[in-house]
Amino acid sequence: MQRFAVTYRIFAADLAEARARAEGIALEQTVEVPLDVVPPGYIADQIVGQIEEIGPEGAGRFRATISYSPDGAGHEFTQFLNVIFGNSSIQKGLKVIAIDPGADMLARHPGPRFGIAGIRDRAGRARGGLIAPVLKPQGLDADALARIAYLCAKAGADVVKEDHGITDQSMAPFRERVEKVSAAVQRANAETGGRALYFPSLAGRPQDLEANIHFAKQAGADGLLVMPGLLGFGVVNRIARDNSLDLPVMTHPSFFGPYVLSEDTGFSHGMMFGTLQRLAGSDISVFPNVGGRFGFTPDECRAIADACRDPSGPGKPMLPSPGGGMSVARAADMVEMYGDDVVYLLGGSLLRLGEQIGEGIAAMRAAIDASAR
Amino acid sequence: MQRFAVTYRIFAADLAEARARAEGIALEQTVEVPLDVVPPGYIADQIVGQIEEIGPEGAGRFRATISYSPDGAGHEFTQFLNVIFGNSSIQKGLKVIAIDPGADMLARHPGPRFGIAGIRDRAGRARGGLIAPVLKPQGLDADALARIAYLCAKAGADVVKEDHGITDQSMAPFRERVEKVSAAVQRANAETGGRALYFPSLAGRPQDLEANIHFAKQAGADGLLVMPGLLGFGVVNRIARDNSLDLPVMTHPSFFGPYVLSEDTGFSHGMMFGTLQRLAGSDISVFPNVGGRFGFTPDECRAIADACRDPSGPGKPMLPSPGGGMSVARAADMVEMYGDDVVYLLGGSLLRLGEQIGEGIAAMRAAIDASAR
Repeated sequence: MQRFAVTYRIFAADLAEARARAEGIALEQTVEVPLDVVPPGYIADQIVGQIEEIGPEGAGRFRATISYSPDGAGHEFTQFLNVIFGNSSIQKGLKVIAIDPGADMLARHPGPRFGIAGIRDRAGRARGGLIAPVLKPQGLDADALARIAYLCAKAGADVVKEDHGITDQSMAPFRERVEKVSAAVQRANAETGGRALYFPSLAGRPQDLEANIHFAKQAGADGLLVMPGLLGFGVVNRIARDNSLDLPVMTHPSFFGPYVLSEDTGFSHGMMFGTLQRLAGSDISVFPNVGGRFGFTPDECRAIADACRDPSGPGKPMLPSPGGGMSVARAADMVEMYGDDVVYLLGGSLLRLGEQIGEGIAAMRAAIDASAR
Repeated sequence: MQRFAVTYRIFAADLAEARARAEGIALEQTVEVPLDVVPPGYIADQIVGQIEEIGPEGAGRFRATISYSPDGAGHEFTQFLNVIFGNSSIQKGLKVIAIDPGADMLARHPGPRFGIAGIRDRAGRARGGLIAPVLKPQGLDADALARIAYLCAKAGADVVKEDHGITDQSMAPFRERVEKVSAAVQRANAETGGRALYFPSLAGRPQDLEANIHFAKQAGADGLLVMPGLLGFGVVNRIARDNSLDLPVMTHPSFFGPYVLSEDTGFSHGMMFGTLQRLAGSDISVFPNVGGRFGFTPDECRAIADACRDPSGPGKPMLPSPGGGMSVARAADMVEMYGDDVVYLLGGSLLRLGEQIGEGIAAMRAAIDASAR
């Protein structure tokens, strides 16, 4: 059984302190007992984490790679995360900066079902950035949202995505909305010969999710938007690994901010919005774009896009999807920054156009294609 | 419909900047469109957040209370959290420090089913701190874990809890383990006439959770340990709100560290490990104790315990459950700090006693009772 490896950035005064902390993590993430209490044999030799490498990274920073047994991580994606960072997430001065799943964990969690090529194929967009307008605002009824969806799909949107804040409220209940928006997008596709994909925002109490996932598929949804920060990464994985369902997943960063906002806790940006999403099985990862309402830097956004598309894995490359501050005026810069394989979210400003929203989609399409390298 | 209110700590240069940020939050957490795009009428008047109060809190700190419509938060607990802090969690310099659910949201999410009085009643411990040994380490088989559980229950443990790292691994699969440990605890209870409660660690992929919850109940489990950081708060809520299931919930902080570790993001300690757990429906909230392996301060731990037990709500008071660094030598200090209504986790050090583990439980019981005020 091939062990998987997690690389932690440890903030410590010296190597001895960093090593002591790494030894603590190796126990904390597995047996959670003091070293002298660990039963000898299998548990001591296999289950306890093993420090594979440790060394300085910069002033007051060290890098420790710890390997773990797939036996401890089991077969549930959530338990994999629990071993990677469960209790150690509560320690200051500790950040996850790399994960190497190894062959055995990758066999259990092989990543995106569709990836970049699969989404391009379904959307019928062989090259160039994909355009994804967002259905909102919260409070509109299902008919109004379906009308916006129709206009966007008619104008050539690649992905029509619902806002993450639209779930199962009484103004636009999940099932009524999914049926009406699916029908609207299908009507537009029939009229244009296009293949705009509709991703409703998955809603429901835990005991309703199974039925809602199948309902969305049957109603004609082409994928699902999931918030792993609120519903759990297990739900992403559950959809991605279902052969008969065969639905793409787009993940949304809601509630995940604290994992990346502080320098010395949580995950690096690339880990959180790239590697973890990909390992869970997401095909498209939404994240806050540079220059929008959130403070991500160009380097942080590039690191996310790189982690999403890294050809060396884990699993198939996925599409980064920057949201916020996207406009025709910025299209050239965005193409320069993100290149070809990217899904551009177009949010609230597009709604200013009302019934002419299609003109905004078309203008964005033209601007992206004009800037393509 | 009574609006619910969230109080944010905003880090800003002056009141004008704080107000501009609060106005941004009121949009971000609801309609997620610029103000000029908000449809007039119901959406502008009801759905958009409203700043109820804003003022200085200290140097560079402001406090803004924003109210939201229950319509936007719907009936799912996860959507309630999504409105409270979904996208705004990704903004630096913003921390949630209070939530007032109001009558309507409290009717939807009334909090702990059992609370302190209910857990005491089921455990048969009318007064004094409760003792909760933890079954571990990961890697033991179900028989070995059942043996530890038997010895702990026999010696007078109030709650026999599984380590959060024990889920559904092949060494001790969930169903086999829950059956064997339930039987062991029931045998001990029959022998002593006691009522030790067994809380297995809930495991399973999302599509297996329903069946596993019911399996645990039928096998004789007295409650469930749930990690909302990995499974989602919705699962806690789902168990708490099920009248026919009638099972207590103990929540574990795994994966939640980044929400409290930085001064200017996430939630205050009392919010994260008190109020939110309570609103979700947890009866017992595990958190890292002062003096253990994590760096929580006495004030942070007291704030958590206070939020768990605040008689003014939300819902019934729940039990704080500090874990880490608990010992007979510290019992008097712990009773001084936490008082009567508390569940003391006893972890790895207890395992040193092997077959004499019961002596450790008895010694802790005596030390707590001797210190009771």
